[in-house]
Amino acid sequence: MHFIKADSQNNAIKRVVNLNRRSYREKEGLFFIEGERAIKEGVNSEYDFLYMVCTKTYAERSNLILQQFIDKKDVPVYLVEDSLMLNISDTVTSQGILAVVKKRNFSIDQLLNKSKNNFILIIDGISDPGNLGTVIRTAHASNVDCVILNKGTVDIFNPKVLRSTAGSVFHIPFFYTDDIVFIIQKLKNKGVDIIASHVNGTEYPYNLDMKKPLAIVLGNEAVGVNNQVIKLADKLVKIPMPGAAESLNVAVACGIIMYEIVKQRLNS
Amino acid sequence: MHFIKADSQNNAIKRVVNLNRRSYREKEGLFFIEGERAIKEGVNSEYDFLYMVCTKTYAERSNLILQQFIDKKDVPVYLVEDSLMLNISDTVTSQGILAVVKKRNFSIDQLLNKSKNNFILIIDGISDPGNLGTVIRTAHASNVDCVILNKGTVDIFNPKVLRSTAGSVFHIPFFYTDDIVFIIQKLKNKGVDIIASHVNGTEYPYNLDMKKPLAIVLGNEAVGVNNQVIKLADKLVKIPMPGAAESLNVAVACGIIMYEIVKQRLNS
Repeated sequence: MHFIKADSQNNAIKRVVNLNRRSYREKEGLFFIEGERAIKEGVNSEYDFLYMVCTKTYAERSNLILQQFIDKKDVPVYLVEDSLMLNISDTVTSQGILAVVKKRNFSIDQLLNKSKNNFILIIDGISDPGNLGTVIRTAHASNVDCVILNKGTVDIFNPKVLRSTAGSVFHIPFFYTDDIVFIIQKLKNKGVDIIASHVNGTEYPYNLDMKKPLAIVLGNEAVGVNNQVIKLADKLVKIPMPGAAESLNVAVACGIIMYEIVKQRLNS
Repeated sequence: MHFIKADSQNNAIKRVVNLNRRSYREKEGLFFIEGERAIKEGVNSEYDFLYMVCTKTYAERSNLILQQFIDKKDVPVYLVEDSLMLNISDTVTSQGILAVVKKRNFSIDQLLNKSKNNFILIIDGISDPGNLGTVIRTAHASNVDCVILNKGTVDIFNPKVLRSTAGSVFHIPFFYTDDIVFIIQKLKNKGVDIIASHVNGTEYPYNLDMKKPLAIVLGNEAVGVNNQVIKLADKLVKIPMPGAAESLNVAVACGIIMYEIVKQRLNS
């Protein structure tokens, strides 16, 4: 295995630091992802890897796994001191490995034409990185075709989002839009029902037919789904709360609604 | 409204800083909680408040809300500079108010005797504060009677856990145990079914009768429910994953299982 020794002045390392910023990620079309599990998902996906960075400790301890990664994606590996990795890592307890990966771009028509299960997720403004990442992970588990993210949603390539996706980001196509109304109209024209989660929803998800083509819309943690989208929705659903809590976490609400769909389709 | 001006050398402020540590929280039997929404839930609960700390900005902007808090819990309010609040707060963007609150102790027999809905949640080792807080919030929404926390679970009074509970911590009784086997035996003797979430579970939650008295067991993010508990479980459930994700976030899995119970009981 061939390593390139690197310190904090190395351009490959400086680039990782810069990739913490959304503007830099957008300019370069790159992102970085940390941890063995996420990288394992990544090397088994269609994403292009540019290079990996690992610590000496990781390279010694996990030589075989690292070799598997390199067998899949033949990229240079930069070797750094453990202390440097702690500085560039977004986590408090770094696992000692990260990868710089090229973003993929999907077109909305491509996504919709590929939509096999007729099960789409629309995110309208989730702001907490952990929540968005968890939602992406759940979408992957429940076999969503694609995720559409409205402007105002936290960047899917934010390191904290990526960590919460547990590698699922590599397996689910997504699309950022700044014209959600246009996209929703497009979906409606294709016969897709729009079901929005709303605090004043009139129906529980359990009572709806979830077998037909549909798109679930989830809103921002504080203000919910925006009004323009609410007006276009075919149904507004709410989750019952027999206890007196004011609301549920958005990623939990997402799981509950999406799994009603999984369940209805399992039994069909 | 009467305020006490305080700086970083004031004992009330020093105590908040110390309450970031679990050992200090345990010694003093106190915790602190931040944010208007959580404190609103707190002042409407049976918890005893010792004092509040707020910034000058908060006191000016939210005078009426602060007065409502004081009407409910007649405690001193320490007034601090915004910069000091940022230093003592656990959050990056402090809302400008926090409260120091006395812990409550519940006995297991008291909890079980009060168990009206026969719906108990057992947490066996969740380690991420955000996950535990989100689980507590979901438990509150779904009307769980009480939460039993096995040793190895993150402290429910950790500031990050409290933030994720969104105030639900004040409305749900809980009990820490270091002998989960004893507690589970006790539950089984009372006719409560033990249903554990397990990666090799044999049944989906949808196919079980969730109307009878039951306790749901959720495990640690990495290693799941411990083997001693698995052996005692009446059923091991898993959540279907038609997508290829390896697993779900534990708080999402919790929501999906608990809401199958909510749904079955709603329709009964």
